[in-house]
Formats: sequence, C-alpha cells, structure tokens
Amino acid sequence: MRIVTSVAAMQRLAKEFKAKNVPIGFVPTMGYLHEGHLSLVKRARDLVGNTGQVVASIYVNPTQFAPTEDLSKYPRDLARDKKLCRDAGVDILFVPSDKEMYPAGYSTYIVEESLSKTMEGASRPTHFRGVMTIVAKLFNIVLPEVAVFGQKDFQQAAVIQKMVTDLNFPLRIVVAPTVRESDGLAMSSRNKYLSPAQREQATILSQSLRYARKAVLKHPVSAAQLKSEVAKLISEKNEARLDYVAFFDPKTLKPAEQVKRGDQIALAVFFGKTRLIDNAKL
Amino acid sequence: MRIVTSVAAMQRLAKEFKAKNVPIGFVPTMGYLHEGHLSLVKRARDLVGNTGQVVASIYVNPTQFAPTEDLSKYPRDLARDKKLCRDAGVDILFVPSDKEMYPAGYSTYIVEESLSKTMEGASRPTHFRGVMTIVAKLFNIVLPEVAVFGQKDFQQAAVIQKMVTDLNFPLRIVVAPTVRESDGLAMSSRNKYLSPAQREQATILSQSLRYARKAVLKHPVSAAQLKSEVAKLISEKNEARLDYVAFFDPKTLKPAEQVKRGDQIALAVFFGKTRLIDNAKL
Repeated sequence: MRIVTSVAAMQRLAKEFKAKNVPIGFVPTMGYLHEGHLSLVKRARDLVGNTGQVVASIYVNPTQFAPTEDLSKYPRDLARDKKLCRDAGVDILFVPSDKEMYPAGYSTYIVEESLSKTMEGASRPTHFRGVMTIVAKLFNIVLPEVAVFGQKDFQQAAVIQKMVTDLNFPLRIVVAPTVRESDGLAMSSRNKYLSPAQREQATILSQSLRYARKAVLKHPVSAAQLKSEVAKLISEKNEARLDYVAFFDPKTLKPAEQVKRGDQIALAVFFGKTRLIDNAKL
Repeated sequence: MRIVTSVAAMQRLAKEFKAKNVPIGFVPTMGYLHEGHLSLVKRARDLVGNTGQVVASIYVNPTQFAPTEDLSKYPRDLARDKKLCRDAGVDILFVPSDKEMYPAGYSTYIVEESLSKTMEGASRPTHFRGVMTIVAKLFNIVLPEVAVFGQKDFQQAAVIQKMVTDLNFPLRIVVAPTVRESDGLAMSSRNKYLSPAQREQATILSQSLRYARKAVLKHPVSAAQLKSEVAKLISEKNEARLDYVAFFDPKTLKPAEQVKRGDQIALAVFFGKTRLIDNAKL
C-alpha cells in the first residue's frame, strides 16, 4: 500500500493510472476506521476488480465542522487506520495535511440549495458546504470512476449525488449499507465518545427505526403523530436528547405528511455532547 | 467539425479521447464570436497540437445574468458561429440547451469569497457564482487538459484560476491577450449594441488605460487622484457613464492605494444600457 500525503503527488498518480485506463475506486473517510468503512473498501474493490486501484483517503475536514463542534477532539489513530487499510487491500492511502487541502487564502466553496437545507443541514448549517467542497476537491485529486459512501450518512450521500449530477462530475456514486454492532447500533467513529451508560442507551436510535417501520406496516400514519411517538420513546432514555426525527421521500428528501412504507426515516440524538445519527427505509 | 448538443454525448466523447490519451484544449464562449474568441481557439490548437482535440462551447449561461440584465437580448447567431468555428479549426463544437445544463430542480453552485467580491462582483453580485458554476460543469463535461480564457475579462480569468487551484481541477488555465479593433476598442459581443455615436465614444475605455499608464510612468500616483482623473476623462463623453475604475495588484486583486507600474487597471463604462469593460497592466 502506498501512502501519499501531497495533493500534487496523488493527482499525478491518479493521472498515470487514468492514462493506462486503470479504473480507480475511491473511499473518502475521516479516519478512525471501523467495519463500516472497511465494507466500503471491499465494495470499491468489487467495483474496480483486481486490476483496478482502490484509493482511500483519511482527512478530518475542518470546513464541515462548526466552531462549536468536535473538530479538535475528533478521534484519530493513523497507525491503526494504516494497518486496517493495508489488511483490507487498499492500494493507495491518501492522507493530506490541512495545509495541503486549504492553503492560506483558500476561498472557493460548493453550496447546494435544496437537499442540504433540512435535517443535518438545518442542525449544522455550514456542514454540507464543507462536505461538498472537500469531496469535490478529493474527486478532482483522486479522479475516481466510482466513489463509495455509507448509507449511515443518508443525507450526505444524497447531497453528494446531487452535486455529482448537477456539476456533471465524470464518475459514479455507490451507496453501501450501514454496518451495525450486534445490538443494532450503527457503527460510527463517534461511538467511542459514549460512556457505558450512553452506549447502552444508544440502541434507542435503531429501536426507533424499527418502531417506525412497524407503525406504518399496515397503513400510513401522520408524520406529526409518528414524530411525537418516536420523541416519547427517546425521552424515556435519561441520557438521550432528540435533535430531530424526520420522515421524507428518499429521492427528493421532501418531508412526508402521511408516512408510508417506502418512505425514509432519519434521526439525530444527542448523548451528552455526542451526536449520533441513523436512518432506514420504512 | 462535430456538433454535440447533449451533455452525455459530449462527456462520453471526452472520455473516449482521454482513454486514448488525446489531449483536449477547451474554449468556452457565449457565442456571437469575434476575432477575440478565434484567437483563443488558435491558442488552444497551439497548446494541444494537431493530434489533440480543440473543443469550443457556445452557451449563453443564464445563471451569470441578473434578472435586470441582458440575457434575453444577448446577441446570438449560431449559423455564423458554426462557420467561424469550422474555419478556425475547431474539432468539436458543444452547444447544449438550457434544459441540458440546468434541468428542473438544479440546485448546486460554486462560490468564491475573495477575488470575486470586487469590481464586476460588486457591480454584478451573482455574476461570478454563475460563471464558476457553468465553467466547473463544462470542465467536468469536456475534461480538458487546458482551457483558454480571454484577458479582456481579467477578473473572470483570475476567479476561474482561483477556482481551479482551490478545487484542484486537473487542468491548466491559459489567459490570452485582448484583441482590439483598430481604434483600440476591445472586441466584445456587446459592441454590437452600440449606436454609431456610442461606438465612436467607446474608445474612451482604451484611452483611459493609456492615460493611466502614462500617469504612473515616472512615479506612483494616489489611486483616489487617478480615479478622479479617469472619471473626469470619461465624463467628457456625453454617452458614457462610468460604473467603476479600479487599480489593484494583478495577482491578489487587492486595491492599490498608490498606483505604480505593474499594477492593473480595470474599468466598466455604461453606454445607455450597454456595459463595456476593459483592463490593462500599467
């Protein structure tokens, strides 16, 4: 596995592979890898085959964190990540510095005015601007045919797909299923922040998804009603504080008034300062 | 010369050329071509050579016009443009429709927060957002190694270069000199709007550039002083109304307080509803 830290070296390498018509599959991450990330690497390998190149990136992108958020304490363990990537068959690991990605005087951003405004975008107003900007940069540096994102960040995948469509990026986005702990908790680097009591109660997110799926199994239910039921469920956990729960069309992200099978649920729940998200198709 | 109207067909063609390592030189235009545009085509040919492909695009991009501006009456003559492109040796002419470029629900834009805020960006606040967005789209569709822009739109070229640098687009920007009529007027599709009296007085732009160059030849002059002198010069033409005149560093676009040789001058002047721009290095 090659480790590349400069933008110029990574882009040169990508151009060399393109000149030889070697397809590149790309998995962008913020590191502190878990089984979820590794499932994306596996998917990228399946997509480009053994003659293709799988590139993973590890970069904790400052522009997607608000000043009040957990940028400085976001978990990092590069030595462990390198080993996991090597074992998972990554060909090139791209680990740029902040100075490489946002040199002094940096001033260009990508914004999206529809899908990015609800849910995560409402709770974190500058988040998707940062996500789209870094992902566009990485696409231009790594030049992938296909990039793989996790379904756990459902809205992120939708916003990135919208950016790729709108700006005509010459690549394909693949969204891979959420990987879960045995008790249902979606894998996330942020799970590490949880105290034992919080960790135990954190299963309330996946339980809420199951609750909603059951609720609409036979007939549609009003979104307001279902939201208040989910909110009540979560309020029963003393460590949990609901940020939002939303029911919406999985394509357009338009809120549903009557929630029915096939709609999407997404929610965000605070445990202390730790904010966890999850989602599912009903 | 091939004429391509669909995004998918253009991108497919570009990918085919890339797979064969054929370099692509790109000249984006809004049509109604003149000698200035054709000089860019010639430059693109020089850059990619006879084995490369020269792609020109003609698209009057609605997102770079404000609602009050001249989008609907922007001059168009596709038949003439096609002939000019063919004669100039363009290999592929890309002429997409609005529906191809901005399908229903379009919502992604590129913004720049520094260089794009002064001069044209101050007079036309949404202009560069539209320019950057369409240029990024065209880059992703045409996949050029090199794209050629005219120096007449000095700030545009600077903003696009900044976007390419910041977002790491895998291509090179070349800026080619302004082509002028024999009396010094910079060539522009908008010159067609001018009445005979306005056309005669429009030489005041290039005269202003010469005036400023002379003024700083021996020693620096205060920007305020030089601005008021240029404003006075322009006010002597009864059809002309100065929008702005600016003196600045050509790299950073930072305003100069003392104007000296090597600084850049740019100005915009209205003749009736027609707005002309010009610039020069002093």
